[in-house]
Amino acid sequence: MGESMVGMKRSHRCTEVTAANIGQEVTVMGWVQKSRNKGGIIFVDLRDRSGILQLIFEESDCGEESFAKAEKLRSEFVIAVKGVVEARSGGVNENLATGAIEVRARQLRILSESETPPFPIEENSRTKEELRLKYRYLDLRRPDIQRNMMTRSRIAILTRQFLAEEGFLEIETPTLIGSTPEGARDYLVPSRVHPGSFYALPQSPQLFKQLLMCSGYDRYFQLARCYRDEDLRADRQPEFTQIDMELSFADVEDVLDVNERLLQRLFKEILNIDIPLPIQRMTWKEAMDRFGSDKPDMRFGMELKNVSQVVRDCEFAVFRDALDNGGSVRGINAEGQGGMPRKKIDALVELARGFGAKGLAYAAIQEDGTVKSSFSKFMKEEEMTALVAAMGAKAGDLLLFAADKDKVVYDVLGNLRLELARQQNLLKKDDFRFLWVTEFPLLEYSEEQGRFMAMHHPFTMPMEEDWPMIDTDPGAVRAKAYDIVLNGTELGGGSVRIHQADIQEKMLEVLGFTAEQAQEQFGFLLKAFQYGVPPHAGLAYGLDRVAMLMVGADSIRDVIAFPKVKDASCLMTEAPTPVDHKQLEELSIEIVKPEGQEGASFSS
Amino acid sequence: MGESMVGMKRSHRCTEVTAANIGQEVTVMGWVQKSRNKGGIIFVDLRDRSGILQLIFEESDCGEESFAKAEKLRSEFVIAVKGVVEARSGGVNENLATGAIEVRARQLRILSESETPPFPIEENSRTKEELRLKYRYLDLRRPDIQRNMMTRSRIAILTRQFLAEEGFLEIETPTLIGSTPEGARDYLVPSRVHPGSFYALPQSPQLFKQLLMCSGYDRYFQLARCYRDEDLRADRQPEFTQIDMELSFADVEDVLDVNERLLQRLFKEILNIDIPLPIQRMTWKEAMDRFGSDKPDMRFGMELKNVSQVVRDCEFAVFRDALDNGGSVRGINAEGQGGMPRKKIDALVELARGFGAKGLAYAAIQEDGTVKSSFSKFMKEEEMTALVAAMGAKAGDLLLFAADKDKVVYDVLGNLRLELARQQNLLKKDDFRFLWVTEFPLLEYSEEQGRFMAMHHPFTMPMEEDWPMIDTDPGAVRAKAYDIVLNGTELGGGSVRIHQADIQEKMLEVLGFTAEQAQEQFGFLLKAFQYGVPPHAGLAYGLDRVAMLMVGADSIRDVIAFPKVKDASCLMTEAPTPVDHKQLEELSIEIVKPEGQEGASFSS
Repeated sequence: MGESMVGMKRSHRCTEVTAANIGQEVTVMGWVQKSRNKGGIIFVDLRDRSGILQLIFEESDCGEESFAKAEKLRSEFVIAVKGVVEARSGGVNENLATGAIEVRARQLRILSESETPPFPIEENSRTKEELRLKYRYLDLRRPDIQRNMMTRSRIAILTRQFLAEEGFLEIETPTLIGSTPEGARDYLVPSRVHPGSFYALPQSPQLFKQLLMCSGYDRYFQLARCYRDEDLRADRQPEFTQIDMELSFADVEDVLDVNERLLQRLFKEILNIDIPLPIQRMTWKEAMDRFGSDKPDMRFGMELKNVSQVVRDCEFAVFRDALDNGGSVRGINAEGQGGMPRKKIDALVELARGFGAKGLAYAAIQEDGTVKSSFSKFMKEEEMTALVAAMGAKAGDLLLFAADKDKVVYDVLGNLRLELARQQNLLKKDDFRFLWVTEFPLLEYSEEQGRFMAMHHPFTMPMEEDWPMIDTDPGAVRAKAYDIVLNGTELGGGSVRIHQADIQEKMLEVLGFTAEQAQEQFGFLLKAFQYGVPPHAGLAYGLDRVAMLMVGADSIRDVIAFPKVKDASCLMTEAPTPVDHKQLEELSIEIVKPEGQEGASFSS
Repeated sequence: MGESMVGMKRSHRCTEVTAANIGQEVTVMGWVQKSRNKGGIIFVDLRDRSGILQLIFEESDCGEESFAKAEKLRSEFVIAVKGVVEARSGGVNENLATGAIEVRARQLRILSESETPPFPIEENSRTKEELRLKYRYLDLRRPDIQRNMMTRSRIAILTRQFLAEEGFLEIETPTLIGSTPEGARDYLVPSRVHPGSFYALPQSPQLFKQLLMCSGYDRYFQLARCYRDEDLRADRQPEFTQIDMELSFADVEDVLDVNERLLQRLFKEILNIDIPLPIQRMTWKEAMDRFGSDKPDMRFGMELKNVSQVVRDCEFAVFRDALDNGGSVRGINAEGQGGMPRKKIDALVELARGFGAKGLAYAAIQEDGTVKSSFSKFMKEEEMTALVAAMGAKAGDLLLFAADKDKVVYDVLGNLRLELARQQNLLKKDDFRFLWVTEFPLLEYSEEQGRFMAMHHPFTMPMEEDWPMIDTDPGAVRAKAYDIVLNGTELGGGSVRIHQADIQEKMLEVLGFTAEQAQEQFGFLLKAFQYGVPPHAGLAYGLDRVAMLMVGADSIRDVIAFPKVKDASCLMTEAPTPVDHKQLEELSIEIVKPEGQEGASFSS
């Protein structure tokens, strides 16, 4: 049932054996990728995390016993082989790092046998994800996933090394912390020692890292596990890892500087790609106006154009109404798409509706220069000509227009732009376009709550020049907040923090906190700020996303060893699970039926 | 209420300013350690994490406005100062890195004012820990704690760097995992999506790291947050960090080799101390026999001696009874302590009783060679002489004997030995004595459970040569398990794991698992092992303990930024806390009174 490896010592990983070792004896260990008997000679492809090495068994070399064992070998058996390296007899395999050599086996041990796996261990598996995640320990053997995990490991180690060189201290912050009254997405942990009390798992180390700045640690970082109990989207997990940092005596420039050098280092050392510095910067306002998004994908143009002035006097009610209601009319030019079939255009209209548009106006510029449009009957010819000119359109182009409140227009066109780029294959995974988006609004108005909310968080510093507007026009106040965007994905974000008690007080007031609420939620931070707090600023990346983009994966599940699925369960371990009643008793809690049957326990 | 730093940029940390900068303008920022006005000249000690720098304010240099501000400075104000470096006018201060220079201020900004702190920010604070932990953000400003945190950061970063160089991959494992029926010390996390189900926080990444070996990752490590819900002792925290690793195709030697090189590197780079390799090794049996402990402190001798044969025929009933009951008589020689006053000896007897001894026999060798002993009346003179000789005692020595079952004798003398060393100041904090303790018993018998339990865990590999005894004498089977011990503290431990299904099955049977129980608890691991598992072995350190010993602290709380106290609460944030009823409702749980009042809810 598996031999011992005692007395044998691995000398090389598979692809560490090279032509330089020809004639030498080596000891290799790994998994059987495949095994075939060709006229009394057994060929085995041995696999480990480094790659594949070919082994050859002939009874005259390895003896009767080892040969008999070799005949039994099947996929995923774990073996140890001692043998001699030689030039490959059957010709060089250019696809393998070790394609010019093979190891002629002298001795074989079967360390572990294997049943037939439920799916083949191979790159770019077509096995459906559910089955792969159930047998994640087998899925993780696939060379492509192994490369992902190795890259992620390098990202983490290089990041720490770089930040340490830059004077950052790695400091661990607690993960059993206090819950806050607004912590609706907190995971809670009942306390055994304090019946009726709970810890929360942190959504981020925000308060603790700001305290560390108060405590004089100057530059802090951590690869911090964070938790958020919310319905999972494609790129979310209940637990995720942040590259989290904070700097004292720092302003926006200092944070951006060190972080773009970090990104440059990572991309150079891992992908051998040069990221030219400085990374392009764009204010939030400009990003919205030009791309309809606060995380624009810079791999292609197709920018939004504001044509409100051009269509101001036209008869098209949709445009007029939008403008009359304080909105705008904007368009994008899908160059060369003038011949798009009606069915595809209809799909785009549907997409636009999904993002809140009442409709989508379009105009195709025919090869003869005439315009075929959904709204031409409402436009004078010179109006249409002016519109086409304003959009910079030429024969063969397709123009798409949204007319609504700015927020809706941005959302619709920003997403249409991405969809069109996808259709036209403009999104190359190996084209990395970074962007800093800066000067985010400090506040955003929540229709639901009927008040302003912090866009980033309540400790974000307003821009000095805008602060006087905080009472008269709070929505117009910009913040010293920034996001780093890569290919349309927000990799991370941060801000300069408020270090002045008077500004912090005012900010909490604007956010609708009573003094008591502020005290209850952030009391210890506000208290700490009374004892001398340095100006400080920080940033946090989603490590999962960074890794996903760097390896070119489509999902963060491909860069997480043991991910959870949409309902926050683990298909391999079946967590979460029911627990013993005794355990709950110790925690002074019991289970209640969720639907209006409070008090009824079914934990007995 | 705090000026902005906009327009100023720090040029140096305090002690980065050196004599080489004399004549240059620098901009420094930090906390006011102290400030004094001496005849119209204001001297300020500025503090940051690097140390102290002296600033000088004279109105003729810095102008009226800055001078007026300088007059207001008090301890813990945060300031930014632009000034010129000059040789110190008042003579060199040898105690400071910057003692030969000072900065003559030209410009001052008060970035943040401070109230008077509740205790002074100074090294080796005598403030009681409770107050310090309540204001941890101030306590963390103390230079000694800051040095601790910086050392811990270096340990973490160097460890990762070393392990990465050795081919280890850093892989994150989940912390929202399944609870196991025996997980009595698990922290539980209720699931919102799956009412009535719970995650557990991991006590270690054990199963996941073994799965990673199954998946071919070859060498894994992680600085992993782990959790244990148990009553806290001095050196425990509800959450703690393990340096966790696992190696494939590895036996005991491979693990010990890489780890002693890791320790050597850490001690050299951080403390500039050479740890000679190989580190001494000792079997568990030898450690118990010679030191009465499985984690012997090797900084001093005072070894146990088994004198059972010597006293076999004496009349002393205590000795006789112990031997007749299958126990032993052992002693230690407290050299030079023959003159210990009776009161101190009585305290030792009390200590021995605390560890289960019925009493403690002692014998002091007088300067004239006569023996003053608590049991001399039961001994013939030649018997006593033989005993003294067997103990290698000379005039002035004190002999202490325990007679009982081996387990009790070891415990009593092992602890007495430590107490005597403490009394004699033999435990130097800067004397680092490492030891590998190997060949631990595979099983230990639990009187409470009436069965054998795994001493390490159920996946620990037995030693090949002992395995045949598993049915006839299970208690005698040794394991391929090892601990790394430093100065009497277990820094870490690990084992070679079972990779053979037949041995694993037998092991679980011996431990009293039914097939169903095994399936329920480790099902996915046992399943994974059916698909080809490499021989593997691992080890985990307590990072908190490593850091504590390296910085010479007495408590792990001194190397944890935000520690919890004995009742698992945080004095600064007051976590854990009650939460909103609405939050519990979403989690389908409610609070019950702990004492037999099940079902009564007081969460409404």
